[in-house]
Amino acid sequence: MKLFTLQNPLWACAALVLASPAVADDGYRLWLGEGATTQARSGVEVRGESETLRLAADELRRNLPALSVPVVVARADDAALAGLRLDARSLGSEGYAVRRAQVAGREVLLVTGSVDVGVLYGAFALLRHINSGGDIANIDLASSPQTKLRILNHWDNLDGVVERGYSGQSLWDWWVLPDFKDPRYADYARANASIGINGTVLNNVNAKADSLTAPYIAKAAALADVFRLYGIRVYLSARFSAPIELGGLKTADPRDPAVAAWWKAKADEIYRAIPDFGGFLVKANSEGQPGPRDYGASHADGANMLAAAVKPHNGIVMWRAFVYADTDPEDRAKQAYTEFKPLDGSFADNVLVQVKNGAIDFQPREPFHPLFGAMPRTPLIAEFQITKEYLGFATHLAYLGPLFEEVLDAQTGVRRGETVASVVTGKADGHSLSGMAGVANIGRDRDWSGGTFNQANWYVFGRMAWDPSLSSEAIAREWAAQTFGNDPVVIDTVVAMMMRSREAVVDYTGPLGLAHLFATGHHYGPGPWVSDLARPEWNPVYYHRADRQGIGFDRTRTGSNAVAQYAPVLARRYADPKTTPPEELLWFHHLPWDYKMPAGNTLWEEMVRRYDRGVAEVDSMRSQWATLRPRIDAERWTKTDAFLGVQQREARWWRDASLAYWMSINGLPLPNGSAAPQHDLEWYRQQSFPFAPGNPK
Amino acid sequence: MKLFTLQNPLWACAALVLASPAVADDGYRLWLGEGATTQARSGVEVRGESETLRLAADELRRNLPALSVPVVVARADDAALAGLRLDARSLGSEGYAVRRAQVAGREVLLVTGSVDVGVLYGAFALLRHINSGGDIANIDLASSPQTKLRILNHWDNLDGVVERGYSGQSLWDWWVLPDFKDPRYADYARANASIGINGTVLNNVNAKADSLTAPYIAKAAALADVFRLYGIRVYLSARFSAPIELGGLKTADPRDPAVAAWWKAKADEIYRAIPDFGGFLVKANSEGQPGPRDYGASHADGANMLAAAVKPHNGIVMWRAFVYADTDPEDRAKQAYTEFKPLDGSFADNVLVQVKNGAIDFQPREPFHPLFGAMPRTPLIAEFQITKEYLGFATHLAYLGPLFEEVLDAQTGVRRGETVASVVTGKADGHSLSGMAGVANIGRDRDWSGGTFNQANWYVFGRMAWDPSLSSEAIAREWAAQTFGNDPVVIDTVVAMMMRSREAVVDYTGPLGLAHLFATGHHYGPGPWVSDLARPEWNPVYYHRADRQGIGFDRTRTGSNAVAQYAPVLARRYADPKTTPPEELLWFHHLPWDYKMPAGNTLWEEMVRRYDRGVAEVDSMRSQWATLRPRIDAERWTKTDAFLGVQQREARWWRDASLAYWMSINGLPLPNGSAAPQHDLEWYRQQSFPFAPGNPK
Repeated sequence: MKLFTLQNPLWACAALVLASPAVADDGYRLWLGEGATTQARSGVEVRGESETLRLAADELRRNLPALSVPVVVARADDAALAGLRLDARSLGSEGYAVRRAQVAGREVLLVTGSVDVGVLYGAFALLRHINSGGDIANIDLASSPQTKLRILNHWDNLDGVVERGYSGQSLWDWWVLPDFKDPRYADYARANASIGINGTVLNNVNAKADSLTAPYIAKAAALADVFRLYGIRVYLSARFSAPIELGGLKTADPRDPAVAAWWKAKADEIYRAIPDFGGFLVKANSEGQPGPRDYGASHADGANMLAAAVKPHNGIVMWRAFVYADTDPEDRAKQAYTEFKPLDGSFADNVLVQVKNGAIDFQPREPFHPLFGAMPRTPLIAEFQITKEYLGFATHLAYLGPLFEEVLDAQTGVRRGETVASVVTGKADGHSLSGMAGVANIGRDRDWSGGTFNQANWYVFGRMAWDPSLSSEAIAREWAAQTFGNDPVVIDTVVAMMMRSREAVVDYTGPLGLAHLFATGHHYGPGPWVSDLARPEWNPVYYHRADRQGIGFDRTRTGSNAVAQYAPVLARRYADPKTTPPEELLWFHHLPWDYKMPAGNTLWEEMVRRYDRGVAEVDSMRSQWATLRPRIDAERWTKTDAFLGVQQREARWWRDASLAYWMSINGLPLPNGSAAPQHDLEWYRQQSFPFAPGNPK
Repeated sequence: MKLFTLQNPLWACAALVLASPAVADDGYRLWLGEGATTQARSGVEVRGESETLRLAADELRRNLPALSVPVVVARADDAALAGLRLDARSLGSEGYAVRRAQVAGREVLLVTGSVDVGVLYGAFALLRHINSGGDIANIDLASSPQTKLRILNHWDNLDGVVERGYSGQSLWDWWVLPDFKDPRYADYARANASIGINGTVLNNVNAKADSLTAPYIAKAAALADVFRLYGIRVYLSARFSAPIELGGLKTADPRDPAVAAWWKAKADEIYRAIPDFGGFLVKANSEGQPGPRDYGASHADGANMLAAAVKPHNGIVMWRAFVYADTDPEDRAKQAYTEFKPLDGSFADNVLVQVKNGAIDFQPREPFHPLFGAMPRTPLIAEFQITKEYLGFATHLAYLGPLFEEVLDAQTGVRRGETVASVVTGKADGHSLSGMAGVANIGRDRDWSGGTFNQANWYVFGRMAWDPSLSSEAIAREWAAQTFGNDPVVIDTVVAMMMRSREAVVDYTGPLGLAHLFATGHHYGPGPWVSDLARPEWNPVYYHRADRQGIGFDRTRTGSNAVAQYAPVLARRYADPKTTPPEELLWFHHLPWDYKMPAGNTLWEEMVRRYDRGVAEVDSMRSQWATLRPRIDAERWTKTDAFLGVQQREARWWRDASLAYWMSINGLPLPNGSAAPQHDLEWYRQQSFPFAPGNPK
């Protein structure tokens, strides 16, 4: 609701000031300060004509408190900064510095960077510093991004439906683009710039060829025009069969010169409209998408052909490794490695292979993908899911920072100190191309992500893509301060809730390394009993393999031997249930229900204990949130409280449905003190959600 | 964008006041003043405990300017008003009065009504009066609604897609209801109450049975709980075959006692959750929907069976007359009359038959539906389309007030002075049940209706449903003043644009009574050449019947004789092209291309003249809008300007495509001075819009 009439802002203002503690916050501003509708203060000097520098200065003018020193916003190569001997190279290609300095004979607070957008990043860093309680006395902020590509993947269809989207329809109003550019597009770009994101793939990886037609190129160009000032490049998902569908060719075989020529011409056409177009993202030969394998060509053949088309324009290709064949009886967790590992070294130098964080599909917990560390000659982008397809959609509170951190910090075992992060940043193998991709949780809902806490997942993705060494807790803390203000009670409580939240989801949906127990299609709610889907690896029973004797997927030598895809040190560790972390136990091992856990209880008892723990944790989150009621604006408090109520009910549903099913398999009683499921198994099996969001037909 | 930080509202306020002429308006507030987030003034006294009275008082406290007299908000039966001898009956069942009065010995401005919601209507009437430039010196406002049911029909599917919706997804977030009630629901109800709307059908007439399941009843009840305070009742579209789909019955035959019992139990269940549930809307045996005709029963059998189920709870049934059979070779325009006229007198007393404004389907212009005046023993609800399915979606500016007014003012010819309005209000035939239904143009877009001027169509529907005798121009004027403020230049310009806008759309899409020339399925853009659809009456060629000799649908005695469905005086007028208004000429007559028009030019020349006029009118609208740039906030100005740009381009497209097609049929040249189409016909035929909004697959 707009807060003022045009007629009488003065009166409304006076009224509002009286009411300030109760000012409603509809979540639109995210973790940021005021947007362009707010009048700017003076005291910030911008040097140079760049629009991006002007944006940086405006951001500070609107959102910095009054400071004792003037603020100067300038690029490191500005003449007035020459005396400072700023080492532009040390700032990094998109880096920034914020420090006290003498500029033109005055003591100022300098916000600078090696390029325009670096200065903008510096402005946001300064605001983050101030809003997190920092001061400017001895301020010396400097940072540069550790990955080159920090990219959102929008799984947005052209009809406005967002696959796995739970926050309303697509932000892109394709229908009225390019004529009408919603002011929200700039707000989107601003929010991304504030956390260092520098690229966005506009359309779903399950792509329509239509995105590559002239009208849609013009629409994408209109978005690129808005985003450019914020340092954000536009990318498109490319449908591999587009030469057939749009070009009228008989084949999309990447080795066919006519196909390559079609893509070259298409790339040229795109670059005429979008000179800084980033490149293509491709999902090929995966879940029904066309690809080079349709013609007996390899993924490298396909990727390299596209890479050649964009190479003259400095474009790149991100080629997804998320493949599994409906005809392949091999453990699904092994197939991407099997297919891509042999291709290491055969990709063009402007191709990155995009690898999901785990080998299955964005489960609440998975071991890191064995391709990390296994393709040293190929830059790998890590793909994370920011939207919570498997973690309760928009309603369940699950802060994904600890999930991202766990994956990034994982040792690959290939070399001492080599982590997934060091692979992803390119440092492990000396790649200058590097990146992190996040499947966006952004839609047209007023609060962008369908709930305040979901905004934190967008935020933490951007911050970790910038610097994978940041701690998820520190990021939670800075997010909370910027989002809710500097009340330490609020920050401490919120951060505590966030930091335990993802583990709670793991506990109530699939503890001890269980995975993919979700209901069919929409992935909402439990479906561990599902066994009737066409492809074996679509069925939860494929993953848990529970029977009267035991549960879990044997991925050791006696099973699929997926453990052998990891470096020897890890393969050995995962080969033995005693040395496998309990959190990943049933991912790697099929174990008897009475397997003795380290604490002395049985596997079954430990499973139940964790389900119960997950449910209790959600109860606790809701109680904690209740204590914050007087400290948070009513609108955001109420929505989160309602969502936590949903999560309480649904955590119990997950726990009860899962236990009812496991008991029907193992015939075991519940441990003492653990409550019986509320309904019988049949009741849980009957639940149906034909209109679940995010599940395009 | 929220305008203030929580931290420093004072400073932001000071800044904002300086910037007030440029305050952004994102359109969320509609034609209203400030909502609940604004602090209230004193000086308004509310008498009584009713929540609705409190809402009325709050509305005045927030949005009335300072007045020289205190304001008292009270029901007419309040003890303090006894001395005023207010005639509660004269106020009407939902009426209001606003006048100076002595209350408890003080001179006050009294806002009163016979029931709580009448008082709320009075509060909005007072604000409308003031914001349209009225004063309170001799204020004496009194009005009561002329129809009993003033209802929005939401064609909203349970997956969030709005059929024929062009303003984002469904406002109802079914997925998180009933747990989370978006604050927007109250804003929706408030906006409706401000224009007198008192009912809303939540789901699409192409209904899923799921809406009648327990979870969805609970969700609807949560909405009803919000709407109730604003005097708005909830209705549901009922799928006629629900007893089979939900109840497991073998039939939905309305004469089967088990079917009747199922509906009775279902109605009882709904009323337990929603005690003031309004009733059912039914689309039966129409465009594939199930209905009583599937069993050889009549529409009256079906309607009466449902009516009996809701009767004990004072519910009603609205039964749509929009039927046409795929097996019936009769002129589609005749079929509803043929089917329903004989049923007059056989409907239960809590059934209304819902009749579209014209006999085909919400075309930019249609003669009024011949059922109006033909069913004197049955209350008829007129159904208008507020959303612009056939008038350029959300982008084209087309104020529908003149369309509604034209229909409502039409003489039925049955009796002297009998108009469609007098039928719809029930006055013509003495019905106490009466109503107007509007297919909503409301979605989750920030500005509700996909553009500022579309809000006027929502507004004018409510105002005319309240009082069909209001003029569309007066309503445009009061809307403009409330929406843009009291700048007479703005109001005059905006009203002038609005008043000619619908005729412009008629001109460039289908002048002289042409209809249904739209592209297939989505109804976006021209498709007069379409002739290959399965059902004859789905093809534009069915409607225009153009050939080398002439054009138009002969509905006289030599043709379908649809004219005979009108009262004799009208039947005679429509039987002769000389006495048929030019605007309806080709609706009723097939005429040679060289037919002489009253002005002396040929039919073909007149057609081209009107196409050109429509295009010129849009050019003119855009120029007029350009002059308002300094007088309107940038956000709303820019969006409307962009949309007018789209309309300019598309008006030309419509004109060029249509003329290219007509010329391919009649072989005639364009009159001197009329520009050739930009492309050849084939180009227009190739245009395709697979992702047009509002067209669920």
